Amino acid sequence: MSKTSRDLSPIFEPKSVALIGATGNPLKYGSIITANILANEYKGRIYPINPSEEKVWGLKVYPRIRDVPEEVDLVDIARPAEAVPEHIEECVESNVKAAIVISGGFKETGKEGEEREKEIARIARKGGMLLVGPNTMGIYSAKVSLSALMPPILPKPGEISLISQSGNIGTNLLAFGSAQGIGFNKFVSSGNEADVTILEYMEYFAQDPASKVILLYTEGLREGSNFVDVVKRITEEKPVIVYKSAVSKAGASAAKSHCGALAGSSKIYEAAIKQSGAIRASTVNGMLDLAVGFLYLPLPKGNRVGIVTWGGGYGVIASDSCELSGLEVPALSPETIQKIDQLLPSYWSRGNPVDLVGLINREVQPKVLEEVVKADNIDMIIASGFILSSSIGSSLYKLLGREQEDAGKNWAASGTKIIVNDIKTMVDKYHKPIVAVTLTTDSSTLKNVIESRVSAYSTLETAVEVLAKMHEYQKKLKKEKEYKLE
Amino acid sequence: MSKTSRDLSPIFEPKSVALIGATGNPLKYGSIITANILANEYKGRIYPINPSEEKVWGLKVYPRIRDVPEEVDLVDIARPAEAVPEHIEECVESNVKAAIVISGGFKETGKEGEEREKEIARIARKGGMLLVGPNTMGIYSAKVSLSALMPPILPKPGEISLISQSGNIGTNLLAFGSAQGIGFNKFVSSGNEADVTILEYMEYFAQDPASKVILLYTEGLREGSNFVDVVKRITEEKPVIVYKSAVSKAGASAAKSHCGALAGSSKIYEAAIKQSGAIRASTVNGMLDLAVGFLYLPLPKGNRVGIVTWGGGYGVIASDSCELSGLEVPALSPETIQKIDQLLPSYWSRGNPVDLVGLINREVQPKVLEEVVKADNIDMIIASGFILSSSIGSSLYKLLGREQEDAGKNWAASGTKIIVNDIKTMVDKYHKPIVAVTLTTDSSTLKNVIESRVSAYSTLETAVEVLAKMHEYQKKLKKEKEYKLE
Repeated sequence: MSKTSRDLSPIFEPKSVALIGATGNPLKYGSIITANILANEYKGRIYPINPSEEKVWGLKVYPRIRDVPEEVDLVDIARPAEAVPEHIEECVESNVKAAIVISGGFKETGKEGEEREKEIARIARKGGMLLVGPNTMGIYSAKVSLSALMPPILPKPGEISLISQSGNIGTNLLAFGSAQGIGFNKFVSSGNEADVTILEYMEYFAQDPASKVILLYTEGLREGSNFVDVVKRITEEKPVIVYKSAVSKAGASAAKSHCGALAGSSKIYEAAIKQSGAIRASTVNGMLDLAVGFLYLPLPKGNRVGIVTWGGGYGVIASDSCELSGLEVPALSPETIQKIDQLLPSYWSRGNPVDLVGLINREVQPKVLEEVVKADNIDMIIASGFILSSSIGSSLYKLLGREQEDAGKNWAASGTKIIVNDIKTMVDKYHKPIVAVTLTTDSSTLKNVIESRVSAYSTLETAVEVLAKMHEYQKKLKKEKEYKLE
Repeated sequence: MSKTSRDLSPIFEPKSVALIGATGNPLKYGSIITANILANEYKGRIYPINPSEEKVWGLKVYPRIRDVPEEVDLVDIARPAEAVPEHIEECVESNVKAAIVISGGFKETGKEGEEREKEIARIARKGGMLLVGPNTMGIYSAKVSLSALMPPILPKPGEISLISQSGNIGTNLLAFGSAQGIGFNKFVSSGNEADVTILEYMEYFAQDPASKVILLYTEGLREGSNFVDVVKRITEEKPVIVYKSAVSKAGASAAKSHCGALAGSSKIYEAAIKQSGAIRASTVNGMLDLAVGFLYLPLPKGNRVGIVTWGGGYGVIASDSCELSGLEVPALSPETIQKIDQLLPSYWSRGNPVDLVGLINREVQPKVLEEVVKADNIDMIIASGFILSSSIGSSLYKLLGREQEDAGKNWAASGTKIIVNDIKTMVDKYHKPIVAVTLTTDSSTLKNVIESRVSAYSTLETAVEVLAKMHEYQKKLKKEKEYKLE
């Protein structure tokens, strides 16, 4: 953490939360946010604030923040914009440490809103209170089990910390990732950033040991921001994965009306991201795929990929994808070929990719994979088609009936468990990244694999992007290190 | 159909099928293929052939093809390569009209296999018998409910006809598409193409009214092929969607060992695809996404996109994606703005993309959409976030219990039904393509929508690719027409 950055723990580790605008009306966000906090079993104390209600979701309601019997760490404000400055004033008077302003109707709506936004930022700063937003969808923190979020979702706890300049995209990523078995540590929808900015969140996550990978969805940057300096320092310690939108004229114009005018040319920002050493995802959901790779795998030491597939066509696509991403698909060494000769039928291709030529024997499959993993001229490995969808064998099930369907699902699931363990063991033993490609839309299969901490993807193209960007990051780290040693 | 092309109906509409190599051993493909045919309730007669078994899956087994009490249209051969020439000979003698050679061990394995392949092709041609493969995973045909496939899958019947030079990729696309609610009319894994080639399958699908869209996964082209002439004629009548792999050196080398040496440079082939007017998918599964667009939507008349989103960030990404794909995102006309002014809160952005600014009212949502759809300066429309995941609202369910969970799911499902109908009605009324973006991993929601014949995708990038390629195809058709009128 740089010396000038503030301690954001009142936002992410509050001992108590008050909700100004809490209500029993289930169609209002003041109700949904309270429900989210309760449903996620927040570890601190909760104080709904509303002068005209007595109970919200069974909790005692206080008329004003000053009526709460303790000094509150964090306040969540879901009230019309006009009412917000007064609430901010009250919070400061009651020694609240941080406020999240959910309400819209600020800078993003024009001149009047901009003035109002400046006003609340001024009051908060003067009172030494941190301010998240306004125009934010809230925050999440695994440590205290706090889901102070607008949409009714329950994130899965984990190691990713995410900052999003779009509330919808951020909360969708939380929902989407959680459904895929990917867990989050901290999340903030940064909103209009009247006070705390994305760089401050990033510095906070950088020094937070529970945040292993930092994700950023960004549309634009504030003027005079020292993005390169700050992020460069962070990427030397942990990966920062960025999706930058508003890269076109149409996109920039949409962003302007979306989260208020953001200064700085997109091109300059893009250059800054590159210079900072942050990893740029090619799609917004792709940030999660990259995070899974960086979380569960060691970095590759070179750019040479070994490919093992169940199905030759996928080997062709994987090879294309590697070469187009700057990765090499080297020939197998005579030793490796000799070893695999003892495992596969005589007509196997003797090349990289290794096609398992329809081999059904699930004991031999991981042995072939291991020969490729341990090869000296291979730095990273794609294992495609090893993990079977739990719904495989529909025609056999149909003929053999319900009982066989269950037996078949168990067979696929137990096979998946074995190969998942084999892959984990090989990653640990050989210190090389292995990505699994499931080639299935069966989301429950993929989820189980990811929850076992194996990096698995449903398409080869995604798997290759992950490997290519891990290699890029490793190269950069190495260069930095050499530079420092000189 | 050109005058020289053969009638392939014995392959795709056989009245009877015999299986040489059928067996009761469930670990052999001769058993799985028989199970697939039975489970999919093939409309013709089935004759398992095996000299050493009496019953397979409850069916009477015949020792040899000549023992079958009728002349058989199609024979499926799943026997070791060495035995295949003799079986082909027997089939010709018994007046079989077509044979599918599942077996590998031909050209893809070297010189000896190549000779064997030439031999079976010669015997078949001399006898006037069509030959699919060898080294194929089989065929599917909805008309006669025939799943003569190696993997245990049951395709969903529909309007897409697919040719794949990789059996794994082809059958995976069948399984994957079917699980997504996408239906197939005919499928062939073309294998080594010793006799029938991809161009002959294409000509057959071209004149087949039940095949509305043709999909082709291809790695390479045979020498002297008249791809451009044939496919150009077809694309004037119906869309041909191609995924071409082996576009890199590494990919081409993998393809060589995968489906035998394929002549011709990749660059020449790629130029031929372009010249033919075929639509090129950027990912292999993306072929299915494109097919869904071409099947359910009219072609756009121009390149101007109207974007309506639930969530401003997604509007930014959609705008980026459109501009980068050559599509325009024009400003809204004063008339459209005035109409939407009456529907949305005063602080809406008054621009394209239209952000629904968190509007929960599901009756107003389609009204806003319709104003954009009917606008004179809009040719095609992206409707993002209208369709809710059936799992939405997890925290509320958790607090309110099981009964509320069901109520919530019903609410989401009924809302989806309404918006799906609204979208279909608008497509018909205004003759403009509308793509829905669900932004959910919830595959059951997406499947229901696709089965209602609405083009829906889980990411904006995919939706934009579909619109851009539909626009490209429309431009090409228009140009052809103008050329012909001259």
